Amino acid sequence: MTSGNSKPDITANEALPTLTLPLYAMNGGDGPHSYVQNSSYQRGVVDIAKPIIEEEISKNVDIKVLSSASTNGFWVADFGCSTGHNSFPAMQIITEAIHQKHAASSGLITPKVPKFVVVFNDVITNDFNTLFSSLPPHRNYNAVGVPGDFHARLLPESSLLFAYSSWALHWLTEVPKVVGESGSRAWNKGEILYTKDRKDVCDAYLNQYAKDIEAFLDAREVEMMSGGLMTLLIPAVPAFWNPDTEYTYPSDVNLLGSCLMDMAKKGRFCEAKVDSFNLPYYFPTPEQLKPILERSHSFSLERLEILNNPGKHSLPSVKARAAFIRAVHEGLLADHFGSEVIDELFDLYIQKLAASPVFQNPNNDKSIVILAVLKRKSD
Amino acid sequence: MTSGNSKPDITANEALPTLTLPLYAMNGGDGPHSYVQNSSYQRGVVDIAKPIIEEEISKNVDIKVLSSASTNGFWVADFGCSTGHNSFPAMQIITEAIHQKHAASSGLITPKVPKFVVVFNDVITNDFNTLFSSLPPHRNYNAVGVPGDFHARLLPESSLLFAYSSWALHWLTEVPKVVGESGSRAWNKGEILYTKDRKDVCDAYLNQYAKDIEAFLDAREVEMMSGGLMTLLIPAVPAFWNPDTEYTYPSDVNLLGSCLMDMAKKGRFCEAKVDSFNLPYYFPTPEQLKPILERSHSFSLERLEILNNPGKHSLPSVKARAAFIRAVHEGLLADHFGSEVIDELFDLYIQKLAASPVFQNPNNDKSIVILAVLKRKSD
Repeated sequence: MTSGNSKPDITANEALPTLTLPLYAMNGGDGPHSYVQNSSYQRGVVDIAKPIIEEEISKNVDIKVLSSASTNGFWVADFGCSTGHNSFPAMQIITEAIHQKHAASSGLITPKVPKFVVVFNDVITNDFNTLFSSLPPHRNYNAVGVPGDFHARLLPESSLLFAYSSWALHWLTEVPKVVGESGSRAWNKGEILYTKDRKDVCDAYLNQYAKDIEAFLDAREVEMMSGGLMTLLIPAVPAFWNPDTEYTYPSDVNLLGSCLMDMAKKGRFCEAKVDSFNLPYYFPTPEQLKPILERSHSFSLERLEILNNPGKHSLPSVKARAAFIRAVHEGLLADHFGSEVIDELFDLYIQKLAASPVFQNPNNDKSIVILAVLKRKSD
Repeated sequence: MTSGNSKPDITANEALPTLTLPLYAMNGGDGPHSYVQNSSYQRGVVDIAKPIIEEEISKNVDIKVLSSASTNGFWVADFGCSTGHNSFPAMQIITEAIHQKHAASSGLITPKVPKFVVVFNDVITNDFNTLFSSLPPHRNYNAVGVPGDFHARLLPESSLLFAYSSWALHWLTEVPKVVGESGSRAWNKGEILYTKDRKDVCDAYLNQYAKDIEAFLDAREVEMMSGGLMTLLIPAVPAFWNPDTEYTYPSDVNLLGSCLMDMAKKGRFCEAKVDSFNLPYYFPTPEQLKPILERSHSFSLERLEILNNPGKHSLPSVKARAAFIRAVHEGLLADHFGSEVIDELFDLYIQKLAASPVFQNPNNDKSIVILAVLKRKSD
């Protein structure tokens, strides 16, 4: 997963400027607060996506594309792989499905097993050590780590047969500036993420989101082979849900924001500290995402499915839910508020979650995941 | 740098067995005992090698090879890059020299700047996080990390234009078994590395060394393009040097072995613990290395130079010398003897180094580095 201002293409001719950007990675390692231990919420969606990915590869990957790709091996990439444990099952599904399609289309009784290169990408501060040391020993691919922001070019031209990204594209390259400006109509005072009732704030976030998805697609346009497939698993919210009896991922985070405001009122830090902190991600509705993807000139949108996120049932207690929110946000929060407030913040958060009847029942979580399949058009 | 039993080709069709091998990496991070802070000894050789690498690229890289490589970008790899700070200057030298050769041979007034992919390889336990976070911001290449043992296949077929390895090929995939067998003529009792006076032990080490270099060349044979160049910087010793007034890198390590025997005699651990510990590396003489390289059917040996290691002058004190030996060996020693003995061991080592008039003067260090340039023949 990634966040940070977009960087210039590092395959381009110019030298890169020094990076002083707020690139952001999930909690590393495999300890109690790690992303490894606290990302079952994100993991569940891979199982639901499996038959769709298999069907799309079987139906939508051209034999001609496979035969032209096979010279350099079949390249598959996961953009925003984090420490890998949610990525490995997905890479397994994709490489096996390509293998089967290749075998079926070869016409040989004992077809050659294709060679795979799997590119694991995440921001430069991602814990690649944990990723590499937990690579599945029985894998059918060469593993390659590519550090860098996926909103810019990372790979050779026309190298990729299949691109994948799960629970990563909601991260923005930056918080929209107007959201932090006290004179602006979109000033997000007293909150740490957009809320349903602040339209100007929501619009500013959506605007940035659209730009960032476009930058991602522009970079992949160059890296993907004509006819290559892309599967994106994008966390989202439905257009309508009832905040009195239901919640979504952003509501959890709004509740975390109210904990920070409580702490400010107790004098732990000033309120302006909360005003100046906004989280760099956005969860679109399907109606918002679809036209962004359809605007691409180089990709055709082959499929768009709305998946009910089964991961919500993996967080049976408020403690588990808080640990999951902590694994994702701890780095950003500690940078801004200081690491000494983190334990108190999450203690308070657990109390608030426990006090709310709405958050007691995972069935009230109306968060969804959008599965989009795109195909790289021929030039 | 690498060590560990050789692994099967992970690009091959079969699944990999679970890795339970003693793959070994240098001390990670950038703290006082890190490889980053204690590898000036290895670094100095890059400056001496620079004009030779530039000359070889200018003279020996074919225009035809460059034009066939340019489709996928120019791929350069460093095998055994460790945490990168000695690798980055070398990659800079190589990519700039290829750029210049490409420009000179293009015939254009403003030639296109080629795109580079630099592959950083080291064992799976290497500290890639430190490597990635210290990548030079003004680099002219895409950085890719490939974890794995370089004695086996790691990269796509015919992908590499230039292969590089410095201070890494002395690591063996395993300690020769006979060296640890009490019934064997090559039993290395009471020592932790071969010594000049034990011919059977030296022969067993040399035999393993030759096998490992051959495995390295066999893997690169498949990965390199016809006409691609390889530059190896291999730590070595001259055929003749006087142990009464001079020393080499292995002599330092023999002295470390004598410290371990002293500690065994004091009852810190039993002597058998020292008998069963042997280090997995070998420093050949040029006369030993040359025929191993010449035996390759797929590479021609274009050049072999003996470089006097300037790095020895970067260790002005016995403390600095001990820190350098510690950064390389700490992991292996702690695994075998326990981390609680490490401080005592190196305190004793500093005393022994300080007590020996021979080790006081870096000019007595007769260690050399062999620079070998090999060219991938056409199939």
